Amino acid sequence: MKALWLENNQLQLRTDVPIPTPPPGEALVRVVRAGICNTDLELLRGYYPYTGILGHEFVGIVEQGPIELQNKRVVGEINAVCGECRFCRNGYPTHCENRTVLGIVNRNGTFAEYLTLPIKNLHSVPDNVPTDVATFTEPVAAALEIQQQVKITANDRVLVVGDGKLGQLVAQTLALTGCDLSVVGRHRQKLDYLAALGIETGFADMVRDRTFDLSVECTGNPEGFAIARRALRPRGTLVLKSTYAGHLTFDASSLVVDEITLIGSRCGPFPKALEIISQNKVNVNYLIQERYELENAIAAFDRAQQRGILKVLLEISADS
Amino acid sequence: MKALWLENNQLQLRTDVPIPTPPPGEALVRVVRAGICNTDLELLRGYYPYTGILGHEFVGIVEQGPIELQNKRVVGEINAVCGECRFCRNGYPTHCENRTVLGIVNRNGTFAEYLTLPIKNLHSVPDNVPTDVATFTEPVAAALEIQQQVKITANDRVLVVGDGKLGQLVAQTLALTGCDLSVVGRHRQKLDYLAALGIETGFADMVRDRTFDLSVECTGNPEGFAIARRALRPRGTLVLKSTYAGHLTFDASSLVVDEITLIGSRCGPFPKALEIISQNKVNVNYLIQERYELENAIAAFDRAQQRGILKVLLEISADS
Repeated sequence: MKALWLENNQLQLRTDVPIPTPPPGEALVRVVRAGICNTDLELLRGYYPYTGILGHEFVGIVEQGPIELQNKRVVGEINAVCGECRFCRNGYPTHCENRTVLGIVNRNGTFAEYLTLPIKNLHSVPDNVPTDVATFTEPVAAALEIQQQVKITANDRVLVVGDGKLGQLVAQTLALTGCDLSVVGRHRQKLDYLAALGIETGFADMVRDRTFDLSVECTGNPEGFAIARRALRPRGTLVLKSTYAGHLTFDASSLVVDEITLIGSRCGPFPKALEIISQNKVNVNYLIQERYELENAIAAFDRAQQRGILKVLLEISADS
Repeated sequence: MKALWLENNQLQLRTDVPIPTPPPGEALVRVVRAGICNTDLELLRGYYPYTGILGHEFVGIVEQGPIELQNKRVVGEINAVCGECRFCRNGYPTHCENRTVLGIVNRNGTFAEYLTLPIKNLHSVPDNVPTDVATFTEPVAAALEIQQQVKITANDRVLVVGDGKLGQLVAQTLALTGCDLSVVGRHRQKLDYLAALGIETGFADMVRDRTFDLSVECTGNPEGFAIARRALRPRGTLVLKSTYAGHLTFDASSLVVDEITLIGSRCGPFPKALEIISQNKVNVNYLIQERYELENAIAAFDRAQQRGILKVLLEISADS
């Protein structure tokens, strides 16, 4: 089958990868659509050593699997877990110490004609949700993880730092809490998408120091972290939502003096994401800026790495 | 009066400082005993610009103040707050944006014959508590702040990193929760004090990676932070209890991937600290390793800066 292969920080479009045979408990999924995420770009830059097929955002159709999923459109949770380790047993399956992660850790990903995933990772896509939209289930779930970790109320002043793909979804999902929300970024056009949804937006200079209860860092760069930090009131909470390549240096004393809480945040709840998506509570259509076929996946990556671009989708097969 | 004065990172013993006149709402306190804290040493190294009398741990006797405190032994909360700013009004008085802080920010401290503090900051020392012991109220309160910020249960595996003054009190107060507690440090002798209290102790090599629910960093150095970090299971909590001079560099991606929570922790509850102290639930006597008179305060600081030394007290006047 065709697949986009990462090896030694180099992408290659291969045509010789065998169609995978699902091991017991897993399904064979024909990939219909896949999205390029910043984590893919970070992996390409060597943020984490990975060799294999990239990609973890997808909609597919089950070709071999349980009867109730057969020929159904599905999305899939990306952590394939053992169910037996101390983290699985203690209710942290996404932190399974034996996990593989779709297109990230020891498991071939979505930029290919087929993939396999454990059956328990798969979720049917509701009929009313278009395939393009369902492709955003994984990043919407990741955005919702913030609300699993921090209780957010209508009284909270919340700042999202970053107007990219992740910042857009984080902002839209946080807006659902009714909190007093602002988003800062560097791109007027991207901010305008959120402004059109009724969210307050601006550049970094609009952030009044020490006035926010919660800030969410969605840029992955030290400048974004600095804005998220200075925005917080004493005892405020800073959520780190981005994958960072490399190290971050910060003033630890200021965290102590202001008693700041810093929380790392990763994968989130698929059922809740699908619910929100099927209720049209987030708008992802405007995020789709380019579409490529799988054979042009390298060009798709080039495009996804350009400044200012939002979501690039790969159209891999028909959704029926 | 005599006072230990810090200016341009230099200590001087002055004899010409006027006895302060308490402003409205404040009391004049004759200082009886004072303790040297690592924050004093950090201020001397320039961690934060401060000019004036150092020191914030003390027991004193009220010479001018309300009748019910007159001639009573008192300890005092170190943040003198406005009561009117947004942080005071929202229940974070220790984060008052107009605060002065005893011997730390714009307020002369305890290494002097007299000090003034707002009357509302003062707490009577229970009769059964010796003056030496009461001098530890402030650091015991700071140690208890952790329990104000994080719910700790008997099921939690907790690691304290650091066997110095702060680590000792943090360990002793955490032990009161009944949690599964370990302390690591570099000094067998200091660890033995805690071992004698029934606390599990060891060197860094005893820390099994990814096994603790909570870790508390009490060293103020990057090596201590690294131990506290690697000790944590996914979704664990790292409390930063030390003042750090300078910046800390860490792997932000690992915080995101493991969804770690980092919490800065500073001043704590005096009433609770006095309660615990008066019930003999912490043992501070062994921490007192040296005593100096105020005229030898510079020698006391030299001693306090030597490796391996725990608490150095200044004996300033009689406690009756």
